Amino acid sequence: MTAEKKKLLLAVTPGTYGPILEPSVEEEMAALCSLVRAPEDIGKMTPERYARLLAESGAEIVVTSWGSPKLTLAALRAAPSLKYMIHLAGTVKAYVEKEAIEAGLIVTNWGGAIARTVAEAALMMILCALRRVTAYQMELHVRKGWRSPHDNEVRSLFERSVGIHGLGTISKELIRLLKPFGVRIEAYSPHAPDSDFEELGIIRQRSLRDLYAGNDVISVHASKTSENHHIVNTEILAAMKDGAVIVNTARGAVIDTEALVAELKKGRIQAAMDVFEKEPLPPDHPLRGMENCLLLPHCGGPTPDRQVDMGRQGLRNLKRYIAGEPLDAVITPAKYDLIT
Amino acid sequence: MTAEKKKLLLAVTPGTYGPILEPSVEEEMAALCSLVRAPEDIGKMTPERYARLLAESGAEIVVTSWGSPKLTLAALRAAPSLKYMIHLAGTVKAYVEKEAIEAGLIVTNWGGAIARTVAEAALMMILCALRRVTAYQMELHVRKGWRSPHDNEVRSLFERSVGIHGLGTISKELIRLLKPFGVRIEAYSPHAPDSDFEELGIIRQRSLRDLYAGNDVISVHASKTSENHHIVNTEILAAMKDGAVIVNTARGAVIDTEALVAELKKGRIQAAMDVFEKEPLPPDHPLRGMENCLLLPHCGGPTPDRQVDMGRQGLRNLKRYIAGEPLDAVITPAKYDLIT
Repeated sequence: MTAEKKKLLLAVTPGTYGPILEPSVEEEMAALCSLVRAPEDIGKMTPERYARLLAESGAEIVVTSWGSPKLTLAALRAAPSLKYMIHLAGTVKAYVEKEAIEAGLIVTNWGGAIARTVAEAALMMILCALRRVTAYQMELHVRKGWRSPHDNEVRSLFERSVGIHGLGTISKELIRLLKPFGVRIEAYSPHAPDSDFEELGIIRQRSLRDLYAGNDVISVHASKTSENHHIVNTEILAAMKDGAVIVNTARGAVIDTEALVAELKKGRIQAAMDVFEKEPLPPDHPLRGMENCLLLPHCGGPTPDRQVDMGRQGLRNLKRYIAGEPLDAVITPAKYDLIT
Repeated sequence: MTAEKKKLLLAVTPGTYGPILEPSVEEEMAALCSLVRAPEDIGKMTPERYARLLAESGAEIVVTSWGSPKLTLAALRAAPSLKYMIHLAGTVKAYVEKEAIEAGLIVTNWGGAIARTVAEAALMMILCALRRVTAYQMELHVRKGWRSPHDNEVRSLFERSVGIHGLGTISKELIRLLKPFGVRIEAYSPHAPDSDFEELGIIRQRSLRDLYAGNDVISVHASKTSENHHIVNTEILAAMKDGAVIVNTARGAVIDTEALVAELKKGRIQAAMDVFEKEPLPPDHPLRGMENCLLLPHCGGPTPDRQVDMGRQGLRNLKRYIAGEPLDAVITPAKYDLIT
């Protein structure tokens, strides 16, 4: 007796097919489920029209990604077959109401599948800030010069101390990339259990100020929560060591940007920022032109060539779901607000 | 019965004390040997005056570094006590005649002590080239923009293939730093034994053209020899894959710069250069302003903060010499021409 195939709705925008959802991944999903693609205008659907589509499809599983409509509690109530939402991206706030999860909808996201590319960006930004890469690009490409007055301040990462602000999947991947550099690592996280620190072989720092004051390199991986808004303020930045480096690949609002600009103006610390309080960064923003601050346009991860990992993670979870095995990266109501 | 202390001459320039030779390292040397500092004008001595100083000092061991005078065969003949030259830096060509080594003078250099900082620079430059860091600095800092037409070409290092041109101490350190990225590594070296490739777990590529044609990332670590002059030419560069990356932290003359400029103009490949055929890079050099080429002013390594590793390596070798143990990084006549 063969069990009937579960119904799966691909509620993703046309741009998702290929870069995120490879043809081979979609084929595997179609072999496992009775698969239907949503209409091409899915990205423009109101929550109400999306709710009708979900109900009429009779789907048990829905796959979503960047640009998908928001799944409301009302939609879940109107679609009694719907049990599982495979979100291929990170933040789920824009794609599902917390109440739907509380009402029993299972939701998973990309988990650690793309974390490594953000960690890679963080490592690159740390190395660039220590070695003054932005200032050298200005010196060699723009001013047509060679040596700079800061040549003697170029630093290596080897044997330095690294402070990690926040301890989620990206931090864990970063710690893996940092290992060959023989660095001393401590992390601050009010949420992570002691066992996480023990398994990673790093030091638990219980004071945020001491984390910033005591390390040569700071990498920000804090969640976008109201308690973290501007948690890196004037006082925290002033506590940083001379010549220290701060890198942000998390969310812009974790740092008080005005305080950062003021601290950078002193020329005492180096920074590298991939995220900003306002994106795109305004053309006249004071960070522009500050040579002790590397700037990137929120492209830490996933890089386009590794967006396939998002689809592959979705497929792995689909297989687990069908086999009745535990899922990876389940978004509980408690986690809903924490993921950046 | 206590053996008489061996005589040691510190033939280094005043700028060596501190950044390279820490006070604690000099103290340890002084505890092990009868130590004499050369006059402060050591950097301006002719080989003849240096020869007289060596002979009059009666030293068995001489410590040299950047800026020390050249030790000639004649100087060795005039100083019968002299047996061992601890060179704290890399290339020895400017500091000792090959004939002196052939006549029996033992010479060691920094070996792998600073290789890791150059490898660190190479890793950073690989990541920067894959992620178009120079173009983004121009976009965000100079043009005050945000996204660029090349956003979709940003790439991750994870799961890519890396080709290493040359297999010395720096390449070996780079391989260690590359491990967490799950890359496939092959190397080309006419000199390295098969056992090196086996121990490192990498593939031996016997064709230089195939190395360049078959990998996403190329890191140049070839020696500055006449056979390697412009070995990376128009044909080799044209063989590189679309979107591939070439990084040079070795010597500028290994690459035919005109050929590189021509290939970069096509916008097909990305580059990152720390070394150039002519240094300082001329102000009107065509590489300046090419946004697919990261430029650094020959500062790969050792970074100023890690020059202490040069002195520490010298001290370790001094201890080995006194104990009659095998020395690290001995420069044989065969190696004399190969070290960059």
